[in-house]
This record gives sequence, C-alpha cells and structure tokens, in this order.
Amino acid sequence: MALRKAFGWERHCLQGLWERAGRPSVQLELWDGTRLGAAAESAVGRVVFRDPGVMAGLIWDPSLALGDRFSDGRIVIEGDLPAVLTAIFSAMPHQRKRSWRDWFVAQRGHSFGESRDSVYHHYDLGNEFYRLWLDERMAYTCAYYEHPEMSLEQAQAAKFDHVCRKLRLQQGDVVAEAGCGWGGLALHMAQHYGARVRAYNLSKEQLSFARQRARQEGLTDRVEFVEDDYRNITGKYDAFVSVGMLEHVGVDQFANLSKTIDRVLSESGRGLIHTIGRNAARRLDSWTEQRIFPGAEPPSLRQMMDIFEPCCFSILDVENLRLHYAQTLRHWLERYEAAAPQIEAMFDAKFVRMWRFYLAASIAAFVSGHLQLFQVVFSRANNNAVPWTRDDIYRRQEAQPFTDPMPESFAGASSWKPARS
Amino acid sequence: MALRKAFGWERHCLQGLWERAGRPSVQLELWDGTRLGAAAESAVGRVVFRDPGVMAGLIWDPSLALGDRFSDGRIVIEGDLPAVLTAIFSAMPHQRKRSWRDWFVAQRGHSFGESRDSVYHHYDLGNEFYRLWLDERMAYTCAYYEHPEMSLEQAQAAKFDHVCRKLRLQQGDVVAEAGCGWGGLALHMAQHYGARVRAYNLSKEQLSFARQRARQEGLTDRVEFVEDDYRNITGKYDAFVSVGMLEHVGVDQFANLSKTIDRVLSESGRGLIHTIGRNAARRLDSWTEQRIFPGAEPPSLRQMMDIFEPCCFSILDVENLRLHYAQTLRHWLERYEAAAPQIEAMFDAKFVRMWRFYLAASIAAFVSGHLQLFQVVFSRANNNAVPWTRDDIYRRQEAQPFTDPMPESFAGASSWKPARS
Repeated sequence: MALRKAFGWERHCLQGLWERAGRPSVQLELWDGTRLGAAAESAVGRVVFRDPGVMAGLIWDPSLALGDRFSDGRIVIEGDLPAVLTAIFSAMPHQRKRSWRDWFVAQRGHSFGESRDSVYHHYDLGNEFYRLWLDERMAYTCAYYEHPEMSLEQAQAAKFDHVCRKLRLQQGDVVAEAGCGWGGLALHMAQHYGARVRAYNLSKEQLSFARQRARQEGLTDRVEFVEDDYRNITGKYDAFVSVGMLEHVGVDQFANLSKTIDRVLSESGRGLIHTIGRNAARRLDSWTEQRIFPGAEPPSLRQMMDIFEPCCFSILDVENLRLHYAQTLRHWLERYEAAAPQIEAMFDAKFVRMWRFYLAASIAAFVSGHLQLFQVVFSRANNNAVPWTRDDIYRRQEAQPFTDPMPESFAGASSWKPARS
Repeated sequence: MALRKAFGWERHCLQGLWERAGRPSVQLELWDGTRLGAAAESAVGRVVFRDPGVMAGLIWDPSLALGDRFSDGRIVIEGDLPAVLTAIFSAMPHQRKRSWRDWFVAQRGHSFGESRDSVYHHYDLGNEFYRLWLDERMAYTCAYYEHPEMSLEQAQAAKFDHVCRKLRLQQGDVVAEAGCGWGGLALHMAQHYGARVRAYNLSKEQLSFARQRARQEGLTDRVEFVEDDYRNITGKYDAFVSVGMLEHVGVDQFANLSKTIDRVLSESGRGLIHTIGRNAARRLDSWTEQRIFPGAEPPSLRQMMDIFEPCCFSILDVENLRLHYAQTLRHWLERYEAAAPQIEAMFDAKFVRMWRFYLAASIAAFVSGHLQLFQVVFSRANNNAVPWTRDDIYRRQEAQPFTDPMPESFAGASSWKPARS
C-alpha cells in the first residue's frame, strides 16, 4: 500500500520532537522516505515511522506513543535497539520541570487492593515466561557483577551474597523479607548463611515456585513463604530485607513501610533496601508506568528518607549499582531474544516487541543515568553493634552451603516460628 | 561558705529535668548534699550542682547551663566524663519535636562575613593550641580506624587514603578542596597520589601552617593554598573534596555549594563530602552552637540532597563513620588531658574545662547516635566511568610517596594553574 507524502507540519513536528529530545544521534525516517534528525553517518540507528497514523500519539505523549507503536510495529527501530534508545535517553536533560501532563495523568494508588492488582499485572504473567530469560534462581532484580565478565547466574548469586554480607547475616538470624519474588534470596540466606527467613509476597505464581524450591532443597523448616502484604509482617527479626519491592510501594506508603520496619526490627537489627531509584524525584515515563509497571515509582534518596527519618533509623551505607542493572538487563535481553519464538507462541508478536522495548529501554535508562539502583543499609540510631568498616564485605570468600547442625530449639520445631516474636 | 538548704521546688525541678532527659543512669547531687536521679549503685557517675545560682539557667536552657556551669566549675561531674555524658545523651529520645526555644533563639547566618567570623571564633585559637592534642598532620576531622587499635596518627593517614581511594585519585588529577584545615589531606593527595591540589580555607592561622608544611615537603608546585571562601573556587577539577566543612556551611547555603561544585567539577569528575550529620534534621544543642561552633548545622541526608539534586549529581556511595568519630575524639581527649596544664597556661582553667566538656560531649553524641559522620561520594548523572564496585577501596595497599617524575607541563610552570581551567 503506497502511503501519501508527509505534510510539512508532520516533518516539522518530528524534527521539533527530535530537537526537544536534545538532538540525539539518531536518524528519523518517515513513511514516505523523508529523513530528519541526525545525519546517517553520525547516527547510531534510525527510527522509522511507518504510517501517518502515529503522529497524533507522538504529539500527545511521545513516550507512550513510541512504546505503543513500537509494540504494534508501526514504529520500527533500525540498528542496535538498546544503543539507539541509549542515544535518545542520553540526549535528554537530567533536570526536568514538571510537565503539564503530570497534573492530568492520574497515578495508580497503593492501597492493599491496588498493590495486588499491580503485582498481578506484571508478575503473574507466568513462571514459564520468566523462566525463559531469567537465571535459574529466577532473580528478577539487579545482579551484582564482581567483575563485568561474570555470568548472570554468578552475578545473581553474588548479589545474594552481597546483600547477606551487608546485613552481616549470622547463623540463626531471623530475617523478614518484604517482596521476595521467586524466593531466591530467602532460600540463599537459609542455605548459605543458616538464617531463618519469613518471606512475604503477593504473587501466587511466584510463591508456588518458591515453595516448591524450598521443598526440593529441604529448606521448608528454615524458610516460610507468606502470601501477604508487607504491611502485615508480624514477629521480630534480626534483619529486614527488601530487594526490588520499594519501586512498587509508592512514596505515599513510605510512612507505613517505616512503621512496619519499626515494628518488626529488633533493637540490634540491620535492614537493607534494594531499589531502583532516581537522582531527584521524577515520575516514570508514561509508557513504562501505564504498560509495564502500573503504580511503580522509583524514589529519590530524599523520598526514601520518609522511611528512615520518622523512626530515626541511621543510614549506614548507600551503594549505587546503576551500571550493574544495565549489565543484568543486557543478559536478560540476550536470553529473551533467544527465546523470542517461544514467547511469541505463548503470547503474540506484539507482546514480544513490547517486552523487547521494555528491556532495551531499561538498559538505556540505567546507562544514561536516568535510573539508579540503590542499596541502603540501616539500623536503629542507638545500635553500636554496627560493623566497624565495610572491609568484611569485600573479603573474598565463596559462600558455602550451611551445614552446621540445626540448633536444638529450631530443628525440633514442628512449625516455623520467628525466634523472638 | 555554708550554703542554704535546697528548696522543695529546686529539688522538684532537678528531678523533673532528670525525668524529662529520659531518666539517665546518673545521680544528681545538690549543694546541700541532697541526692536525686539514679541510685548510686546503678549510676555511672554524678552531676554535682555546687550552688543554688545554677538553677535559673538550668530551667531556661539546660544544655547551655550545663556546659557553661561545667566550664566555670559550678557544676562538677564526678566519674568518667564521657561515660556520664553518654549515659545522659543515650537516655534522650532520638526523635524530638521542635522546642519553643527554636523559634526564639536566632541562628547565626552564613553570609561571607558571618562565615569568616565563625571560622575565626573556632579555628583561630592558635596553631599552638591545636598542636597539643591533634595528630602531627593537624587533622581536625573524623579519622578512619581500619581496626580500632590504630593510633591517631595511623587513623588520620588511613582517613586520607580512604578519601583518596573513594575519589579514585590518579596521578595528575587536579583537585579542588573546600575547607582544607591545616592542609593535611591536600598535602597527602599531592605526596602519595601525585594529585595537584588547590585548597581553600578562611583561617589565616591554618593556612600559614599548611603553606609552611608544603614548603618543608617540597610540594609548593603541586599544592596551592588559597585564602578564600569555597564559593569563590575557580577552575575545573577532576575531583572536588570537602572534609569537615559542610557542618559550617549552613543548610541555607547548600544551593550555593551545589552551584559551586557544578561550576568547577569536570564532566568526568568525582566528588566527596565528609561531614558530621544527623539522622533527621535537628539543630545542634544550644551550648555547642553558642559557645563552640557558631553557625554550625550538621545536616541530615535529606538536607544534603539540596546539594546533589539541583544539578542532578548521582550519589554513588554513602558511608556512616559515626563510631570512628567517637574513637577519634577519645584519642584527642586523652592528649588534651595530658596537655591540660599547658593549655591552662595559654588560656585559663575555665577554657580548659570548656574544651574538656566539648570533647567529652562530642564523644557522647556520636556514641549515643545523636550525631553521624557521613562520607558521600558523587558524580555527574551521566558519568559512566564510575567504579564498577567498591572492592578497590578495600584492597590493602599502603600508599607510597609519589615519586614519578613530574609531567613536563607542570614541572616547568612558574605558577600553579589547574590543568583544565
């Protein structure tokens, strides 16, 4: 089907968008072959607008339209997708004024019901789907690459160890995990550090996988997976940990999270929160917010202080692992592409493109510095049993499976109970 | 001179103050021998009020009166002074509502002139005074104890190294230091890391010492000490560092500090700010604010975000060295006590007691968790040359004096110039 020539205003609009985006080194091609934007020789790739119907959406909400039209194939990106998106994101200014859209587009709330809906939307796509491109432990959060050549499996295990070391986990420690995903960290803490873990999650699919894993590995007496909201955690714990949940909690709920931690953390307890974040408060782009992570809100460190200040928790350590998330996503995308035919059979071609865009755009967001990955370690203000330095985190020692005999009181327990509840 | 018996309202008032302070394990003794507060057997020490004239001040402003009357000897503390003050501070709640005093007691400002006055007040007491109880490098900031048995000299050198490693200083890097004290860090960076440093300070006494040291050590071609305000830093630098200045900058000036850093830091530059801080915003106690550090305001991390957010700096690393400052202060106090006769000869007995109280109270503030010590490492948001992990900071290697031949362009320069200004 031959398409009409682009109108002057369409060319003008697209060129304007490209300029407002900071003149990224990306070429634009219209449905009639017109080329705009960066010159071919300096461009890392080309964004092809395949029909005039994409224009209205691009004017109304460029981020949403780019993602949606990429998903349905009416916008095509030629060249290395993460590289092209990185070029676009890198050109965009880091400071941004609140846009008029921010006042109109309502954001999803974080009530108990809404949190449940948000989790279902993303995480209950099916274990089979995630199994195709995550590591064997199904860790769907930023890995920790001790060196950039590590495999995904190694780096996810290293992340678990990094978290456990930062928490200074000891044999017999009782741990609460808020938002445990497929249970990889909880099982790792039990298996390699002798911890007893109660792990909370709202996703049935993930919990079913995690419980099966616990049975397979003989850890059911040390790890309990609870289908409930983090706000309902009960008991007292030596450590509180949350990896990759805070993004979904919503800043308006940080005061509740604060109360929860204050209620469950022992006087000498340590806490760690691992979350996607921002250098300064800013909403997610509308495509990711509407299509991928309803209600997600990666916080700035300032916003995170709403968790720590009300109970006078003391920040001990903050680490930014932004580039590790880019590397994790590269590994995911590679496996995702290899599994694309299977994924298309499970869903459809549009779904494949949508998730391709999401993974590639996430790489771009971390590489360009629009997203951060914070690990924050904290304790109560008067806890003087905090580690003297961080040296011990970096002493190289492979975590070994925990083989010490069970403590009496625990081995004999017929059902799992936190020691100090 | 025999003193009258304490009135009932006086006993009542002091008992009330003790209860409001959280019932610390400290006994109170009045001028007539009456004892209140904790029982002798459970008390770590005793606060003795030697005459009725102390009462009015204690009611009006307990913190100010305690410090002032300790200084003039009308309040005596029996027992280990840091231990007694730690007992008092530890009993005090970490959360505090704004007191009515906060609305009345005006705070010193941070204009250029006021900053100069504040610095003169504290830092120009004379190099001879500080030399009596600081380490040989005259580092008047929190040291870094790789293990708690380190000497003060070792720990101050280790702090310099810790800062340099966190900044990933390379030979030839050009560094701006805001608030350089007696120049220890600047000289260390030049001597052991081959950096070229321009270091700013308002204190003539300190600068005179630092310049002499630079001449003695043959570092005048690599370190320039500038008598000026941090807001007037010029040039472009690979690293921006400030150790122990931010406490004096004032939260109302953080936006100006932000602009300064944004102006002077190169695109690939790294920054480090080392400062006394708070878990949540709260003013200093009135005695320290009025008698020791006029205008000082240790910030919370939330307040510090005023430095980082406007220019979208990315926080890479935060470490809390609270207990290291307690240890540093213990070493200072030990030397201070040994030098007390000399200090009394230089000033007077009241001065000796005042500074004794300040050092001991500072130990108590860090041990009880009312004060923090934050080291914050940051870079520009789009800087991808940031370190992959923090592993390199902890690889043990003694810093060696920098002995490589001078780069041509620098050895020949007749006057110091930052390379990229």
